[in-house]
Amino acid sequence: MASTPPRDYAQDNFGVDYVIRYHFNGSDISHATRQLVRLLRTLGELGFQTEVRHGDKSSLLVFVRAPEESLHRAVHTSRVRDWLYGLRNTEPGPAGSQEPKTDAERLRAIYYMITSPREYGGAGITPKHGDWKHVESIFALHDQRTNGKWIMKWSKKTLLDRDELDQIRAKFGEKVGFYFAFLQSYVRFLIFPAVFGVFCWTLLGDFSIIYTVVNCLGCIVFVEYWKRREVDLGIRWQVKGVSVLQTRRRQFKPEREVKDEITGEVRAVFPWSKRLLRQLLQIPFALLAASALGAIIATGFAIEIFLCELYNGPFKTYLAFVPTILLSTLIPTISTVLNSVATRLNDFENHETQECYDAALIQKKLVLNFMTSYIPIVLTAFVYVPFAPVIVPYLDVFGVTMHPFVSKQDQKTIAHADFHIDPSRLRNQVIYFGVTAQIVNLLTETVVPFVLLKVSRKYKEYSENRGKRDEKGKANAEKREFVSIYADPPEEAEFLDRVREEAELPEYDVSSDLREMCIQFGYLSLFSTVWPLMPVSFLINNWVELRSDFFKICKEYKRPTPQRTDTIGPWLDTLGLLAWLGSISTSALVYMFCDPDEKPAEIKAWALLLTIFFAEHIYLAVRYVVEATMSKIETPSMRQARAQQFLMRQKYLESSVGARGWSDDSELESQAGDTPPEQEADAEPQDGISSSERFWSHQRSWKDSVNVGADIIMQSQGTTRPESKKQR
Amino acid sequence: MASTPPRDYAQDNFGVDYVIRYHFNGSDISHATRQLVRLLRTLGELGFQTEVRHGDKSSLLVFVRAPEESLHRAVHTSRVRDWLYGLRNTEPGPAGSQEPKTDAERLRAIYYMITSPREYGGAGITPKHGDWKHVESIFALHDQRTNGKWIMKWSKKTLLDRDELDQIRAKFGEKVGFYFAFLQSYVRFLIFPAVFGVFCWTLLGDFSIIYTVVNCLGCIVFVEYWKRREVDLGIRWQVKGVSVLQTRRRQFKPEREVKDEITGEVRAVFPWSKRLLRQLLQIPFALLAASALGAIIATGFAIEIFLCELYNGPFKTYLAFVPTILLSTLIPTISTVLNSVATRLNDFENHETQECYDAALIQKKLVLNFMTSYIPIVLTAFVYVPFAPVIVPYLDVFGVTMHPFVSKQDQKTIAHADFHIDPSRLRNQVIYFGVTAQIVNLLTETVVPFVLLKVSRKYKEYSENRGKRDEKGKANAEKREFVSIYADPPEEAEFLDRVREEAELPEYDVSSDLREMCIQFGYLSLFSTVWPLMPVSFLINNWVELRSDFFKICKEYKRPTPQRTDTIGPWLDTLGLLAWLGSISTSALVYMFCDPDEKPAEIKAWALLLTIFFAEHIYLAVRYVVEATMSKIETPSMRQARAQQFLMRQKYLESSVGARGWSDDSELESQAGDTPPEQEADAEPQDGISSSERFWSHQRSWKDSVNVGADIIMQSQGTTRPESKKQR
Repeated sequence: MASTPPRDYAQDNFGVDYVIRYHFNGSDISHATRQLVRLLRTLGELGFQTEVRHGDKSSLLVFVRAPEESLHRAVHTSRVRDWLYGLRNTEPGPAGSQEPKTDAERLRAIYYMITSPREYGGAGITPKHGDWKHVESIFALHDQRTNGKWIMKWSKKTLLDRDELDQIRAKFGEKVGFYFAFLQSYVRFLIFPAVFGVFCWTLLGDFSIIYTVVNCLGCIVFVEYWKRREVDLGIRWQVKGVSVLQTRRRQFKPEREVKDEITGEVRAVFPWSKRLLRQLLQIPFALLAASALGAIIATGFAIEIFLCELYNGPFKTYLAFVPTILLSTLIPTISTVLNSVATRLNDFENHETQECYDAALIQKKLVLNFMTSYIPIVLTAFVYVPFAPVIVPYLDVFGVTMHPFVSKQDQKTIAHADFHIDPSRLRNQVIYFGVTAQIVNLLTETVVPFVLLKVSRKYKEYSENRGKRDEKGKANAEKREFVSIYADPPEEAEFLDRVREEAELPEYDVSSDLREMCIQFGYLSLFSTVWPLMPVSFLINNWVELRSDFFKICKEYKRPTPQRTDTIGPWLDTLGLLAWLGSISTSALVYMFCDPDEKPAEIKAWALLLTIFFAEHIYLAVRYVVEATMSKIETPSMRQARAQQFLMRQKYLESSVGARGWSDDSELESQAGDTPPEQEADAEPQDGISSSERFWSHQRSWKDSVNVGADIIMQSQGTTRPESKKQR
Repeated sequence: MASTPPRDYAQDNFGVDYVIRYHFNGSDISHATRQLVRLLRTLGELGFQTEVRHGDKSSLLVFVRAPEESLHRAVHTSRVRDWLYGLRNTEPGPAGSQEPKTDAERLRAIYYMITSPREYGGAGITPKHGDWKHVESIFALHDQRTNGKWIMKWSKKTLLDRDELDQIRAKFGEKVGFYFAFLQSYVRFLIFPAVFGVFCWTLLGDFSIIYTVVNCLGCIVFVEYWKRREVDLGIRWQVKGVSVLQTRRRQFKPEREVKDEITGEVRAVFPWSKRLLRQLLQIPFALLAASALGAIIATGFAIEIFLCELYNGPFKTYLAFVPTILLSTLIPTISTVLNSVATRLNDFENHETQECYDAALIQKKLVLNFMTSYIPIVLTAFVYVPFAPVIVPYLDVFGVTMHPFVSKQDQKTIAHADFHIDPSRLRNQVIYFGVTAQIVNLLTETVVPFVLLKVSRKYKEYSENRGKRDEKGKANAEKREFVSIYADPPEEAEFLDRVREEAELPEYDVSSDLREMCIQFGYLSLFSTVWPLMPVSFLINNWVELRSDFFKICKEYKRPTPQRTDTIGPWLDTLGLLAWLGSISTSALVYMFCDPDEKPAEIKAWALLLTIFFAEHIYLAVRYVVEATMSKIETPSMRQARAQQFLMRQKYLESSVGARGWSDDSELESQAGDTPPEQEADAEPQDGISSSERFWSHQRSWKDSVNVGADIIMQSQGTTRPESKKQR
């Protein structure tokens, strides 16, 4: 039966499709019980098989298996819908047919059956929402065996190939699939700047114009290439244009109901104008955030610079850490605050569909992330370096406290300051963000959580055991009985333990990983000219990332419910924007630093601006050309899609009207003669026709016309055809 | 019969659908005759009615009427095709059904029947091409009466409304329809800057920042608005996405034939990479053209400036005309040369479809037009004004010939020159292009040709009569006989005369009119800040243009064969680009001239560049916002389209699978119990299942699960339900 999951998977997971973690806390048992009854009845009525086991102290695990027949129908319905929306080119077979289904499609369909509202035939179970607040989560089980196999396999090879991406998609759905596909092409792209970077770094040093130009070009090509790749994958995975199917947001608060006069469907609407006004709030918010973060970072800098360039007093070595500590404590706190504000703003915008909501939120968070990631470097490059001579002396205001140490140095300071201004400071910063930050990130993201997880599990076990041991006295008997009644059957024990562990795991959100890549791309396009080895470090980092992320999904998160998408989302535009800004920032950097022994003080503002102006517009022109070129390339999938459409249409045309359309009945010719009367009948029943018909009656068939025509030609040459007279 | 053309139209034109002008020259009569036979047979075989009349001395007129049945089938086929390609949302009724057809659709279908290749069931008659070189043109007849009515009607009202646009589209097809729709919305948009311009001109004078900003904003909004409007009209006229149906170019030279392995259709292909390389030739060409035109214009200027600022010798007043004459003679000649080169380049690019070819050609010509139109002003504004003090003295090189007059003034010159530099020169130029040129254009475009036409007809008549009179002697008898045999029947005479006149007319090409509008928009966005009254003159001009163009189409051109399109084509991007460049040029102009008593010499380059930089990026940001906003607006047509799709899908779903999909059969619940064995049968026939099935067999129905669940909850609270034991 093609539709059942692969054997080993079924074996390991006892054919469980989904597990519902049902939470109950001491307070209102009765209500919890009532709701549990409702839950199980709803599922039962829809034909789901259910098995209940105990989870941890305050939760149940409801194992769900979908009835094959209705699952088939569900899948088929969704496929038909896809086909109607033009997401897939191959018409789905008859209902209930045993077409091969991917794991992901199966799980998606079941999840839809469980969660979709009753009027669409679903069970309408909404975790943590509405009257299902006891339902804590609905999650599928990891396919341990396959995951393990893949982790092993990939650790051996350099790059994933097409099939492996397809496998990922088949297991975890398109959303995750797209992330890995993107990461994959990004890594492949990075090879080029990495190699070239090494080359430039060794031969040309930093701030080489050649590297900058090539890097910019590379970024353009990559972004455009990915756009194409997305389309290609979208067609290959049959999700092209899936974004039209949007899931309504439960939290959406409509202003009023509107009955569509044409279709008669009642739609709850919220005026777009009103939403737009609310969205305008982003602008002040962004400005506020920028200034807040900017202020903090600037202060940190100021202190740092002050300490290492002005201050010569005691504890200098220790004080040097002050700014670092300051920043690393303040920035996270403020950005969490800002993030929560952003979320609140987003809720306030009251988006209608989940997709819009996510996109909007992502963008807001992205802006914040950019600020925290790029402001420091920008400050150094475009404020500190050019204006240090002006600014540094003022930093002395901090100095007043420790005047004894500083005052006599003030004179030096000035000279000192603009002597000190060289790219080294900038470079160090860039290297920090390019290498150190990446590694730290990788650790905090993958390794640390894993360790913590292990530890916490150990601890939990330990505490539970102790808990058991502690419980003496009257409850004891029951407890033992309880254990004895509902102890896991030996053959299930191992499985259930695993399920309980998975139930504890957090839910995976691919967007955070994508954001990380996006920011990294930003460093590449904006600042890599400062230190051409950057792409190398990124390349290595991402090669590891590709594996560690997969490991992360398999081990540290619940199995993500498959979601469909045909793009990596708002990041695509962001990448484009970053590449664009890159053209500005890199050109500026190159101009300012390309010749090291030139004093920044001597930078000509107009020349700098002119450089930027040209760089940017050349960039835009090139991008236009690349776009045009790329759009001409037809990927295999596209060709296939075109072909399938062609076939579909051909079939239709052949079935309905013959391809040769209007010309394939032969009595027309003879008919031509007798058309006039028929026309006469209905067309114009008065003097009009008579003349019109007389006009058409001169030459009854095309042969007459030929004769007349021939005659005219002849005669115009002054020769007559003898029969021309009797013709008439 | 809904499908026949309106009565009066049929009456006036004797129900003629198309007229084929068949040309024969003295040389090869026999061949001409043979081809005529073939022509008439082909038409006859397809069921067309034909009538031959003599045209002018060396041509025949073949009148064609399409057979209703096959016409119906043709129309139906094309509609089905449209529907399959998703161009129309309403499924076409059964073949041969009497759906109302617009005039345009009818003519388009017939034209397709006549011209489309035989394998598609057409007659495959290709005017002036292949073995139909005698077929000079195939054209429909003007609907005099309606045209006259409309001209009268519109001359009375200020703006056309939606229905009138629909009427135009119904008569002349979408291509013309789109032009008028665009012109219409452009006129409507112009009202706003016109009013605001007057306001600014009176209160703030030229180069007012406020006007500039508002104007820029206006341009953005207009372009974005039109994008939406296009979509809206596309849906309303059921041509949305029609661009996917492209007509193959006959001149296309494929490099090799490729058999599509999937569909098996054999396609003649030309590698895109090769075409791309050829397209790269545009770049040198553009540079060459720019330098050539630039050089000419610059020289003209130089002479002019020299004459009015340095030269004080004799004939000054007469010599002042020299540059004007020079430019007005040289520029047209060189631009015709360049245009022909552009056409040749375009042919060389060997585009596969007519649409691509046209688009490419249009773009090339556009570039040339822009150069001729904008270079003069750009030179004045950005070369002459800022650098005059530097340049002007060198103009003296011309002066060496007439040294006696000049030398002693040289000193003055310098002072003189940068004294002279005020916007007045620039303004005059702008006013010239904004007003004078427009009027001249209007005249040369509409009035002059009309007059010429009348004159030439008079002359032709006269000469022919004289010709007749001269012909004495032997040929005379035949001639008279010829006249007598094929003299027009009295009731047809007037009609035939009209047809012969129309046969003489040139073919209308909407793109030239669009180009004109596009260039005008360029003046508005780029330079209108120099003279805020510009939009006023444009408004007036276009108001007239809207009528005169229609008049032109009706009187001075053959009736255009209806063509479909869903956009105004490459102009849309061009408008966007112009608006963008506008943000740069206007900001620069304002900065340079806003305060009149500031010497241009004192302009700070860096400040200017900074202004431009900010202006441009603010522009881009604003555009992004406007785009986002516009994309949120749903036009009526769009809503309707959405609704229709919704209905279509609903119908389909209801017919195939019940909307409630998988849940609507009630025996499922009872079934749930017996699923396991059935699974057992096929799923995993070995040890695997046994454990798996044991897992699922603990609780046979949801009720058991409830009990177990309830128990667990209870017990976790340390209480037992009495029946919990016997449950198990």
